[in-house]
Amino acid sequence: MRLNFLPDQDFAGRLDRDDPLANFHSQFIIAHPGLIYLDGNSLGRLPVGTIKRMQEAVEHEWGHELVRSWGDNWWEAPIRVGEKIASLIGAASGQVVVTDNVSIDLFKLAAASLSLQPEKTKIVTDALNFPSDLYILQGLVRTLGNRHQIVRIGSPDNDITPDLDALAASIDADTALVTLSHVVFKSGYLYDMAAITELAHKGGALVLWDLSHSAGVVPIALDECQVDFAVGCTYKYLNGGPGAPAFLYVRRELQKQSLSPITGWWGQKTPFAFDLEYVPAPGVARFLSGTQPILSLQAMDAGLDSTTMAGIKNIRQKSVLMTEYMIFLYDTYLAPLGFSLGSPRNPDRRGSHVSIRHSEGYHINRSLIEEMNVIPDFREPDNIRFGLVPLYTSFMEIWEAIRRVRAVVEEKRYQKYPSNRQIVT
Amino acid sequence: MRLNFLPDQDFAGRLDRDDPLANFHSQFIIAHPGLIYLDGNSLGRLPVGTIKRMQEAVEHEWGHELVRSWGDNWWEAPIRVGEKIASLIGAASGQVVVTDNVSIDLFKLAAASLSLQPEKTKIVTDALNFPSDLYILQGLVRTLGNRHQIVRIGSPDNDITPDLDALAASIDADTALVTLSHVVFKSGYLYDMAAITELAHKGGALVLWDLSHSAGVVPIALDECQVDFAVGCTYKYLNGGPGAPAFLYVRRELQKQSLSPITGWWGQKTPFAFDLEYVPAPGVARFLSGTQPILSLQAMDAGLDSTTMAGIKNIRQKSVLMTEYMIFLYDTYLAPLGFSLGSPRNPDRRGSHVSIRHSEGYHINRSLIEEMNVIPDFREPDNIRFGLVPLYTSFMEIWEAIRRVRAVVEEKRYQKYPSNRQIVT
Repeated sequence: MRLNFLPDQDFAGRLDRDDPLANFHSQFIIAHPGLIYLDGNSLGRLPVGTIKRMQEAVEHEWGHELVRSWGDNWWEAPIRVGEKIASLIGAASGQVVVTDNVSIDLFKLAAASLSLQPEKTKIVTDALNFPSDLYILQGLVRTLGNRHQIVRIGSPDNDITPDLDALAASIDADTALVTLSHVVFKSGYLYDMAAITELAHKGGALVLWDLSHSAGVVPIALDECQVDFAVGCTYKYLNGGPGAPAFLYVRRELQKQSLSPITGWWGQKTPFAFDLEYVPAPGVARFLSGTQPILSLQAMDAGLDSTTMAGIKNIRQKSVLMTEYMIFLYDTYLAPLGFSLGSPRNPDRRGSHVSIRHSEGYHINRSLIEEMNVIPDFREPDNIRFGLVPLYTSFMEIWEAIRRVRAVVEEKRYQKYPSNRQIVT
Repeated sequence: MRLNFLPDQDFAGRLDRDDPLANFHSQFIIAHPGLIYLDGNSLGRLPVGTIKRMQEAVEHEWGHELVRSWGDNWWEAPIRVGEKIASLIGAASGQVVVTDNVSIDLFKLAAASLSLQPEKTKIVTDALNFPSDLYILQGLVRTLGNRHQIVRIGSPDNDITPDLDALAASIDADTALVTLSHVVFKSGYLYDMAAITELAHKGGALVLWDLSHSAGVVPIALDECQVDFAVGCTYKYLNGGPGAPAFLYVRRELQKQSLSPITGWWGQKTPFAFDLEYVPAPGVARFLSGTQPILSLQAMDAGLDSTTMAGIKNIRQKSVLMTEYMIFLYDTYLAPLGFSLGSPRNPDRRGSHVSIRHSEGYHINRSLIEEMNVIPDFREPDNIRFGLVPLYTSFMEIWEAIRRVRAVVEEKRYQKYPSNRQIVT
């Protein structure tokens, strides 16, 4: 595919003209047309339809209907929206709910998985995992009385791809759980879900995938891969809005014996009987705990529609074309300027963002944001991440972003920026 | 106070004319002026100011500013809004954050409290507590390996007030934690926070209060009472919107040694260093876990303003006058019709809702909602709850609600309703 790319600006225009998803950008608010927004892998853009949906949720459902909306619409929302997400991640009905956030959902499912094989003590993960996922495991192990050990493969700063041999070697008869990010947050490496899940199962371990950087942009086949547990985020490629509730998946066969550690009334069999003893709800709903943030949830629901309309297969096709094109431009324009590629070259093993690395990466990122009207983001120690979102990123934006990165380095603009590092989410 | 009440409608009008908070109802959306909404203890009304604030959060902060809003406003929101709530519950700065929901926050703080006295095995609570709080304790005990026992005082269906002697007797040297609802959800009984906290401390136990039914309507002095831990809800009297995030309080002296079981990156000392080992943030922020539902949080923030403006002292004064008046009307008009009072008669031991009980309570409640344009709510087995919210409930509404309840019973309207019980939150 890359062989046919040309480095000139006209070629970017040609790719845009040939893009079957080009019209989807009109479903999003593009408030500053000059701004090149390449951080949709952190926070997806605002869908046009969400504005009206939120107005309705606030003014009609809450303001007019008040508590009656619980029965009409709100109480079932975690299930209803969970079903919509299920169809995007290869899950049959009755296995996905929307609730809480990724950290909490990971805590719930990791705890549930460990209690299914209480005699085993090993949790296998890798150093490329999102640190919060590792923190959650650490807190869980402490809470459970330090009976488990966390085996972490690899080194966080240098690895673009994980050491699969080390991963395989670390799974043994004492391994209760293998938990990984499907697409890793720094390099964008995409794990082979089928192969790793099979590997874990062969070793007798259960698997828990974090789909935060793959849901909505990479085809996922949870059922087909026989995945046990999964969690994921909805405010990145699913355009759910800042801090929109996460989702969790529990394979049907495991639901009956799996229990959440956080047993609130939303996961009770008969919540409105107000019995004093917890009895788990029959299905995946037992992993709900307390009352959900309905306004955030409704906004998120509205944001799913464009992904469903476009279709994950088409989205993936454009995503691969975009990351390939960006890497082609990187090779042409940036590699000679002291950059190195922070993402895998094999598109089959890559999600939808491209990391480029530079010793002055932090300052280059600041310059891009402050004076070049480009928004990527930065991840320590030297990664500038460019999130390419098929629903609204254009090939011309990719071309122009690369041109501006080049200008920042050639004109040494990054030298202007102080070295104290700020919060950049 | 009750001696001066008169049972006629004109008297209700007089109380409204003398009400110093009467103008606050204009700060809320009253969509159906004929509807008597007495369920603000379940879901508070929509504040007028929230509509604009949500539009700004969606269209400007998310739509226009995109990921830049994290640094400007969003990342600090749990702390910033926590400080606003602190001032409403008698907490000095640095002890309250807004996050997740009551069930999850209770899980976090109960776990933290148990690990502070690992040799003790008893958790004392009561049968009047909100069932979800009991479920959370049950799940926590299971997660910790069934090393603890939950001692539950009283009987859920018959008790209006708890058995304080039994409570006192149950606290001994083996008691790690006493956890109760400050105002209990069914009868509205209001615990003496100072006395119970002292009692627990004398026994060597820590205390965790659930303020869901008292925050925003009852004066609370957490610091003065030397409370250890507290959680509370913001969508009832604080008008935060459906499922708005909860808050949690950790007394300053306990923060350093208290750890959350759910250690996500929002509670990490340096979240953007992306270190692989969890190091707790210095203060109460360590009890944050994952990314918060920002839209719901911003709506909630906007909803706090009218409570702050009115002042908790004035709010409590009107609240007591309202519940006293309602009980006076109950005695006059309803007691002869087969009802019994489900709330304490002593206003010092009562929150801001009044429960009345009737063997046909479920059907009376249905009739009130379906044909009488009154919205109370129902709690098994026979409680109709009337939430009286000083910021927008009028005395005339109370008078009229009682009249309509009487009509339902006198005209036997409740007989129309089928007996299968529906979800009523």
